[in-house]
Amino acid sequence: MSGTEPFDAVELITTKRDGGALSADRVTWLFEAYLRGVVAEEQMSALAMAIVFRGLNPEELSAWTQAMIDSGTRMDFSAVSAPTADKHSTGGVGDKITLPLAAVVASFGVAVPQLSGRGLGHTGGTLDKLESIPGFRVELTTEEIVQQLREVGAVICAPSTQLAPADRRLYALRDVTGTVESIPLIASSIMSKKIAEGTDSLVLDVKCGTGAFMKTFDDARALAETMVRLGTDAGVATSALITDMSTPLGLTVGNAMEVEESVEVLAGGGPDDVIELTVALARRMLDAAGRPDADPARALADGTAMDTWRAMVRAQGGDPDAALPAPKHTHTVRADTSGMLTRLDALDVGVAAWRLGAGRARKEDPVQAAAGVRLHAKPGETVCAGDPLFTLCTDTPERFDRAEEALRSAVSIGAEDSAASRPLILAAL
Amino acid sequence: MSGTEPFDAVELITTKRDGGALSADRVTWLFEAYLRGVVAEEQMSALAMAIVFRGLNPEELSAWTQAMIDSGTRMDFSAVSAPTADKHSTGGVGDKITLPLAAVVASFGVAVPQLSGRGLGHTGGTLDKLESIPGFRVELTTEEIVQQLREVGAVICAPSTQLAPADRRLYALRDVTGTVESIPLIASSIMSKKIAEGTDSLVLDVKCGTGAFMKTFDDARALAETMVRLGTDAGVATSALITDMSTPLGLTVGNAMEVEESVEVLAGGGPDDVIELTVALARRMLDAAGRPDADPARALADGTAMDTWRAMVRAQGGDPDAALPAPKHTHTVRADTSGMLTRLDALDVGVAAWRLGAGRARKEDPVQAAAGVRLHAKPGETVCAGDPLFTLCTDTPERFDRAEEALRSAVSIGAEDSAASRPLILAAL
Repeated sequence: MSGTEPFDAVELITTKRDGGALSADRVTWLFEAYLRGVVAEEQMSALAMAIVFRGLNPEELSAWTQAMIDSGTRMDFSAVSAPTADKHSTGGVGDKITLPLAAVVASFGVAVPQLSGRGLGHTGGTLDKLESIPGFRVELTTEEIVQQLREVGAVICAPSTQLAPADRRLYALRDVTGTVESIPLIASSIMSKKIAEGTDSLVLDVKCGTGAFMKTFDDARALAETMVRLGTDAGVATSALITDMSTPLGLTVGNAMEVEESVEVLAGGGPDDVIELTVALARRMLDAAGRPDADPARALADGTAMDTWRAMVRAQGGDPDAALPAPKHTHTVRADTSGMLTRLDALDVGVAAWRLGAGRARKEDPVQAAAGVRLHAKPGETVCAGDPLFTLCTDTPERFDRAEEALRSAVSIGAEDSAASRPLILAAL
Repeated sequence: MSGTEPFDAVELITTKRDGGALSADRVTWLFEAYLRGVVAEEQMSALAMAIVFRGLNPEELSAWTQAMIDSGTRMDFSAVSAPTADKHSTGGVGDKITLPLAAVVASFGVAVPQLSGRGLGHTGGTLDKLESIPGFRVELTTEEIVQQLREVGAVICAPSTQLAPADRRLYALRDVTGTVESIPLIASSIMSKKIAEGTDSLVLDVKCGTGAFMKTFDDARALAETMVRLGTDAGVATSALITDMSTPLGLTVGNAMEVEESVEVLAGGGPDDVIELTVALARRMLDAAGRPDADPARALADGTAMDTWRAMVRAQGGDPDAALPAPKHTHTVRADTSGMLTRLDALDVGVAAWRLGAGRARKEDPVQAAAGVRLHAKPGETVCAGDPLFTLCTDTPERFDRAEEALRSAVSIGAEDSAASRPLILAAL
C-alpha cells in the first residue's frame, strides 16, 4: 500500500474473497484509483472473479453502480419538456423490439432516448440493424439527441463515451477474464448507464432461455429484481418483464431483414410475438410516463407510430423509403419429416446468423447488412417434409456450411398434437 | 481466440470458474502462452482467483507444477556423488532450523543443496539471517553450488532465476491480487522449485499456528499431503512434519541473533525446541539419504556439525569467527504480573521483530542485521512481575513504540499450575 492511498486493493480483494462486504468509501476509492491506474487490471479482474463467487450485497451494489456513474458525465434532458421513458433488453435472437417500440411510445408525446449497442457473439445489436438503412447515423452529439427528443420524440443512437466510462473499461476487462457471468456485475453495468442517461422511467426486458444470457428463469428473475431495485433506489421508475428467449423473436434474424420486419409491424402487420412484446413493453413505458390512456396497439394500426418512425429515420440522416440491402446469396434448409415444430432453438439460429455475417466475433469486426436467417415456421406450427424451414442469407456463400451446421440440432419436429410452446411473457415485476 | 492458438484463455478461466477440470495440454499451453504474453496478467489473476475457490484436482496440480518446472532449467547434481537431501519450511517466527540442520546432515556425507529465500512480512528469511555474517555470499552460480556440495556438503544460497521462472512471475502476481491463499497454488509454487532443483529427497516442515501461513491443523495437513504427493509423483522421496508455530522457535527472532543462536546449537547448547526440531528433521533427511545409522544429536554434541558449518561459511566467503552486528539500541519489556507464561504469540512477536527492522514490507526494502526480539521466557515457564520478557533490538529507536504495541497482547500469564503448551511436532507423514 502506498502511503498516500487511503485503502489497499489487496485488502479489498481478500475481504471480498473471504465473504466480507466492501464499505461504500472503499468502492468509491476503488473505481477512482482504477481510473488513475493505481488499481491494476489484474487486481480488478481478481476482484471481479471474487464477486462472481461471493456476489455484492445491496449496499455494495449501490456504491458500485454509483461509482461507475460518477466516473463520467450524466446526460441532461431538462430541456426536454416531455417525460422520458427508456427500455433495455438483456439481448436475444431476433430481438428488434426497440425499433417499433421507440416509435410507438414517442407517437404519444413521450420522449424515448434509446441509447443502444452493437452486437457481439450470437446476439444482434440494435445499432447494427439501424445502420442497414442507407444514410442512418447512430453517432449523435448530446445536443443532437436533445434536439431530436424535442422535435421527433424518439432517438436510437450510441451512448456517449462519457457515459459511465468505468463501466466500459470494466466490461472490456470482464469480457477477457471470464467474469461476465455475475448478476450484480451485469446489473450494475446496465443500470449505471441507464441511470447516468437520466431517463425518468425504464422498462427492462430480461430474456430467459437458450438464446439469452440468463438460461434459467430463476437467474432471469434475480437479475430483474436486482436491476429494478437499483433503478428505483436511484429515482428512476423501473419495472421489468421476464420474457422467453428459447426461440427467436419474429421470423427474421439479421440486420436489414429485422428492420424490414419492424417496418411491417409499424405498418400494422408482422409476426404476432413481435407485436405482443412491443405492445406489452409500450404499455409499461406509457404507464410510467403518465399515459395510461394511450393505446399502443392503435398506434400500430392507425399509422401514427409509422409516422414517428419515418421522422426519426429522417432526423438521423436515413431515408425511410430507400431499399434495404438484399443478400447476394441465399440457401434454403428444408424439413426432413412432417409434424408439429415443437422446438426452434434461439441459440442455434443466433449462431447461424452470426456465422452468415450478421454478427461479429470481435468488437472491431464489420457486419453484413443483408446477412441472416429467415424463419418459415415457428414452434406450434405444422410442417411437411420438404417444406422450407430456414432461408440463409449472406454475401459470402462459403459461410453456408458452418451456418447449416449450427442449425443441425436447432429444430425438433413431433406429433401434431404435441404440447404448445411456452408463453412469451413469463413474469412481470 | 487467435486462430493460431490451440486454446482460449477465457475458456480455461470459465471452465475452472464453473467447477470443471483443466486438461494437461491446456495447463501446458497456459504457462507457455503466459510467458509469451498471449495470456495476460489479468487473465492469469482471474484464473488464480477461480482456483482459490475451486482448487485443482491431482491431475491438474501435477500438470500445473510440471508446467512451472518446464518454464526454466533444472539443476543438475549428477557431478555430486553423495545422495542429496533438502528441507523446506513453510515459514515461521524464529525459524532458524535450516542453519544447524544443513550442517548436521552434511556432516554425515549427505549433500544438502538448501536453496532459500528472503523474508517478507512477519516471517524471516534464511538468506537475510546468513547475510548478517560478515562476507557471506548468498548468490552463487550453479557451478559454485555443485563444487561446494562436493567439497563441503552443505550450501545455503539463493535459487537461480532460471529455476521455475513461471512460478516467480505467478507468485508476484498472486501477491498483489489476493490469490496467495490457495493450498494447490502454494503447494505447486514450493514443489516446482524443489523438484526443478533436482534433490533426491525432501523433508517438509509445514508450520501451523498464529505465526504460520496455515492457521489450522487441517489446512497444514492438507498442504503437507498435497506437497508429499506432488514430490513423490515426481520421483523425489518426500515426507513432512507438521510443527507448531503458535509460539516462536527458540529465544531469538531476528537476523544476526538467530545466527548466534544457531551457532549455540551447533556448539551443543541452545534452546530445547530448536534442538528437538533440528534433530527430528535431520533424522528424516538422513533416513531418506540411506543413513539410518547416523545420529544427528551426536553431531551437535561432538562438534562435527560445527566443523561443517564453519567450512560452509568460509566456502561462501564468510568469516565464522567474525563478530556479528550488535544493535545500537535495546529496550526491555517486563512482565506486569507473576505466574506461568501460558501463551506467547508467534505472530505478535514476528510483527514486533519486523517493525524493529528485522523484516521487510516490500521486496526491495533492506533489513537490519541486528534488529529483532530476544525472548526471556517461553510458554510453560514461570515469571515474576518485573522480570524481563522481551529485549527489543534495533538501530532505529523510533521503532520501539510500534514494536511494543505489537507485543501488547502477545503474552498470557496464568496460574502456576496452568496446562502445559502443545507439543512442537504435531504430526508426521
